[in-house]
Amino acid sequence: VAKTGDGSSGESVVRVVRVKLAGRSYQIRIGTGLIDGVGRTVAAACAPSTAFIVTDRHVKPLYAERVARSLDAAGLRHHTITVRPGEKSKSAGALARVWDELLANGCDRKSAIVALGGGVVGDLAGLAASTVLRGVPVVQVPTTLLAQVDSSIGGKTGIDRPHGKNLVGTFWQPSAVEIDPAALSTLPDRELRAGLAEVVKAGVIRSERLFDLVERRAEPILHCDPGVLAEVIELSCKVKAKVVGSDERDTSGERAVLNFGHTVGHALEAAAGFDRLLHGEAVALGMIAAGRIALKLGLWRAEAQDRMEKLLARLGLPQDLGGLDLKDDAVIDLLKSDKKTVSGQVYFVLPESIGYAALHPKPVDLALVREVVGTLRVKNA
Amino acid sequence: VAKTGDGSSGESVVRVVRVKLAGRSYQIRIGTGLIDGVGRTVAAACAPSTAFIVTDRHVKPLYAERVARSLDAAGLRHHTITVRPGEKSKSAGALARVWDELLANGCDRKSAIVALGGGVVGDLAGLAASTVLRGVPVVQVPTTLLAQVDSSIGGKTGIDRPHGKNLVGTFWQPSAVEIDPAALSTLPDRELRAGLAEVVKAGVIRSERLFDLVERRAEPILHCDPGVLAEVIELSCKVKAKVVGSDERDTSGERAVLNFGHTVGHALEAAAGFDRLLHGEAVALGMIAAGRIALKLGLWRAEAQDRMEKLLARLGLPQDLGGLDLKDDAVIDLLKSDKKTVSGQVYFVLPESIGYAALHPKPVDLALVREVVGTLRVKNA
Repeated sequence: VAKTGDGSSGESVVRVVRVKLAGRSYQIRIGTGLIDGVGRTVAAACAPSTAFIVTDRHVKPLYAERVARSLDAAGLRHHTITVRPGEKSKSAGALARVWDELLANGCDRKSAIVALGGGVVGDLAGLAASTVLRGVPVVQVPTTLLAQVDSSIGGKTGIDRPHGKNLVGTFWQPSAVEIDPAALSTLPDRELRAGLAEVVKAGVIRSERLFDLVERRAEPILHCDPGVLAEVIELSCKVKAKVVGSDERDTSGERAVLNFGHTVGHALEAAAGFDRLLHGEAVALGMIAAGRIALKLGLWRAEAQDRMEKLLARLGLPQDLGGLDLKDDAVIDLLKSDKKTVSGQVYFVLPESIGYAALHPKPVDLALVREVVGTLRVKNA
Repeated sequence: VAKTGDGSSGESVVRVVRVKLAGRSYQIRIGTGLIDGVGRTVAAACAPSTAFIVTDRHVKPLYAERVARSLDAAGLRHHTITVRPGEKSKSAGALARVWDELLANGCDRKSAIVALGGGVVGDLAGLAASTVLRGVPVVQVPTTLLAQVDSSIGGKTGIDRPHGKNLVGTFWQPSAVEIDPAALSTLPDRELRAGLAEVVKAGVIRSERLFDLVERRAEPILHCDPGVLAEVIELSCKVKAKVVGSDERDTSGERAVLNFGHTVGHALEAAAGFDRLLHGEAVALGMIAAGRIALKLGLWRAEAQDRMEKLLARLGLPQDLGGLDLKDDAVIDLLKSDKKTVSGQVYFVLPESIGYAALHPKPVDLALVREVVGTLRVKNA
């Protein structure tokens, strides 16, 4: 934890998390007001000939002008590219539009991209950065909780295809990640809650301390208290940074642990339509399903499952499929086409205690998966 | 040079060139009849769950069945994806079709792609391999001389955009490159000659021995003598392998030397329309232009330029723009949008002697470039 230079705002503490990679390491900085310092960070991280802000129509009026001013202050030329908000922008068409707007505005091999927005913008801008001119640097400036604790870190980029989410993408590590928790004040409540699902995930898989913190401080968190949020984001980023550092390209199995809740989650999201179930909401349901599978396999205790389900409920995350009319067959088919699937067999990350989960070495029987997905139909108290 | 195991064909010598990279090295194998051994190579290099042959409609009837049989013989499941022949397949649309055909046919993270064809297929299939499911292995099986001596080696993948060639792509090293010079017997004569432009390039930049060989044996080369071709391919691959090994991601400037002839070449290709001037033909003109710039700057001698131009002429490569009606302004504008261009300044690889060229440290004055491009309008003897 370090103090910012100017000390102009009341809350000027900057928390730093380092992501250590074989080839190149980078810093995640977390602090109120950091959005006004993006220019300095971009200049220090990659000193680009031009910085291209990629953002969406929702985020642009809120923060793009501040980022642009900070780029001006750092003496950097810049251009802003605006995409449509929402998962539909994780498409080949949106990607091609970003490529061509970059190229039409003088993007060269010394240019850099500033991804300003949520997970969609980060994934799309990251993929564009990794492929335009065979790769230019990207600085992630996430403005949703989901992006701040998860998607902006770790270098996964992606777009969706008709067969499922994130089926096309790259590994492309950011040069820096700049997180301003104050940006969450403009986030719709539902999206804040959805982001908390990834926080709970980080706690369950690797940090009982984080899980405890969210349990103890759920109310201030839901009321967007910036001090508590900064601590929650820092602990979440530490989990992610550690896992990513040990398995950058998702090959050793260590990184797969981040997929806790995502196997069923992705299938539910795709089956429901990406707009009806937010990613975090789907992950919350996926964690409940994975926990129930772990219970059935005798890997973890009913008390732990109960504790996790109760916390998700307090955070206002879905406990069951509610009004969503999903066909089990469709969900199972989508599971089988998940990119973690190998030769049609479905592997799960399963929890063993609050603070520890691991990729289960054997594929899980699809009949058991189907049974557990079925329990999500039952309305909880 | 090693003998193949079976010794069934008369010419069963296999030449091996190793590409040494920091992360991972791979072998280029060159030998008559190797196309029937692709299955074994794929199994040894990446043991995939399924091998996806990506090829085009011209190459498929010639070689896809033989590759498929070799995959069968190696016990590998496989599926063939066929794209339209020609530069138009280096497009976002063709890429999306490859992604979706891979995903529709069970591509998973243990699958591999076999790129069977010329440069277009190799670049497109390589980009698809690097992005589908965030990356699966690719084995390159080039069937044109251009691809065998240049584009299949070094890991550059790409598609074109309206602003120019190869403006989108990745670095994605193949797991193996399997070269069968006998495949050149089905290559149209014009494409063989175009491929020889890249051979001459390799000679001029790094191998006087290769340049001498082509000078001495131009006639058997043009008559597709497989023994001479194998030696020419081996020496060309050695140049490429050495340069790529010293600068995998094109950052130190060493790899830029491979771009000799490509700066003006790419612009001419784009200005003419990719179908009217073959890549190698454009590179031949680009080498002549770069050589004339080097002459003007006093970097190399008129005798060397003369020797290079004479050899290109003997190989049936264009000496001037002939009937192509290109606007100089359009060519210069395209030059400025080349991805090697930084902040609008154009850098050139310039030859200093047969066997040595280097990236010139200063940008070349655009008036000089325009003057030299103008000399390409003058009909040579």
